[in-house]
Amino acid sequence: MTSKKVIELFYDVVSPYSWLGFEVMCRYRNVWNIELKLRPAFLGGVMQGAGNKPPGLVPNKFKYMTKDLSRLAEYFDVPLQQPADPFEAMFQKGSLTAMRFVAAVQEKEKDGDKKVENVSRELWRRIWSEDKDITEPASLSEAALKAGLSESEIKEVLASSTSTEIKNNLKSTTQAALDHGAFGFPMIVCHVGGKPEMFFGSDRFELIAHCIGENTIVPCTTHQHIYHQTGRNK
Amino acid sequence: MTSKKVIELFYDVVSPYSWLGFEVMCRYRNVWNIELKLRPAFLGGVMQGAGNKPPGLVPNKFKYMTKDLSRLAEYFDVPLQQPADPFEAMFQKGSLTAMRFVAAVQEKEKDGDKKVENVSRELWRRIWSEDKDITEPASLSEAALKAGLSESEIKEVLASSTSTEIKNNLKSTTQAALDHGAFGFPMIVCHVGGKPEMFFGSDRFELIAHCIGENTIVPCTTHQHIYHQTGRNK
Repeated sequence: MTSKKVIELFYDVVSPYSWLGFEVMCRYRNVWNIELKLRPAFLGGVMQGAGNKPPGLVPNKFKYMTKDLSRLAEYFDVPLQQPADPFEAMFQKGSLTAMRFVAAVQEKEKDGDKKVENVSRELWRRIWSEDKDITEPASLSEAALKAGLSESEIKEVLASSTSTEIKNNLKSTTQAALDHGAFGFPMIVCHVGGKPEMFFGSDRFELIAHCIGENTIVPCTTHQHIYHQTGRNK
Repeated sequence: MTSKKVIELFYDVVSPYSWLGFEVMCRYRNVWNIELKLRPAFLGGVMQGAGNKPPGLVPNKFKYMTKDLSRLAEYFDVPLQQPADPFEAMFQKGSLTAMRFVAAVQEKEKDGDKKVENVSRELWRRIWSEDKDITEPASLSEAALKAGLSESEIKEVLASSTSTEIKNNLKSTTQAALDHGAFGFPMIVCHVGGKPEMFFGSDRFELIAHCIGENTIVPCTTHQHIYHQTGRNK
């Protein structure tokens, strides 16, 4: 029996390309011999730390990304829809509160990462599918309820999400991303032979497969199968 | 017999990702039922026209791109190597003279595009494999000789490359790219059902295949085959 290769996935629910990368990696964890470590972090901190600017600020790039995301969403079968005002959702409202909430869910979850996976997905669904808020406590509670957390768990997580400990946890994951050379999300770090190999974006799965000695599966013919293996609830 | 779908490939030899896209599309033209139209243009003009900044100016992004290019070069089997000083090669020396030369080759070539294909490849090989100049007339001549042009052809092309007609040709192709929504290269435009569909970069071949009703071929098992079909000379 060979030991599983560790793959870290750094993401922020404000990032639509992160959602695609997240769903694809959640599917591959059932196909590849890997241990997927979810690493919720704060994209705003990464952009600032790396001195990077959001790509959507260039008008032609923004227009293209809208089209590209809609094509990729269909290709990967992720129900991604652009919000009516993506700039308000991404830059004015942002994701700091939401990502602290996800960090708090992760801190509380001792066995596995099903809750952090489900809560992340429900937050993406709100902002990047249903054009709903992810900044208010009521919004976070609603997402967590759908993700299967109990009322008492949600109350506890909401309280701890504003604690210094959780704020520092999120900062520290964000710093770890920067230390790996991040300049945006999603960022995937494969640990092979004691060496971290960093991949940016949701379009390097063939290279990732090559790096860890696995094969990709052509999504257009078999992704429904992988999709269902994850037990993802629509 | 169905008519071939037209695909335009906008590129500049200063762009390493364009080289990857160019080689992959030159291989697929033998596999897909397409007419590939090579559209040499000026990346500097596209960046300025779109208000975009070169991605390599963000240090983490530059570091990653170096790694990413080397991984993709291996994956696609293109002999790409970063020049010792990529900033000097790309931004100080640039590609305006080279792309006017390529535009002049294209203007002169009436039957097909074998010469413009070969000259482009030899220029890429100089800047992005052998760390050689592509700005001096002697450099352009050397590339064109390797590409199979005769001494007299080269003399003619060098002369016409500084003409107003060729300058305007290059400007007009660059403007056509911007009109399609370009913000960088490579840009691939598929004409399907009278509608242009634009794809940016060298990592959307699955989406392009889907768009034109074809299939991609997994490069890791069969690209040698496609590679040889193109008759590409190493």
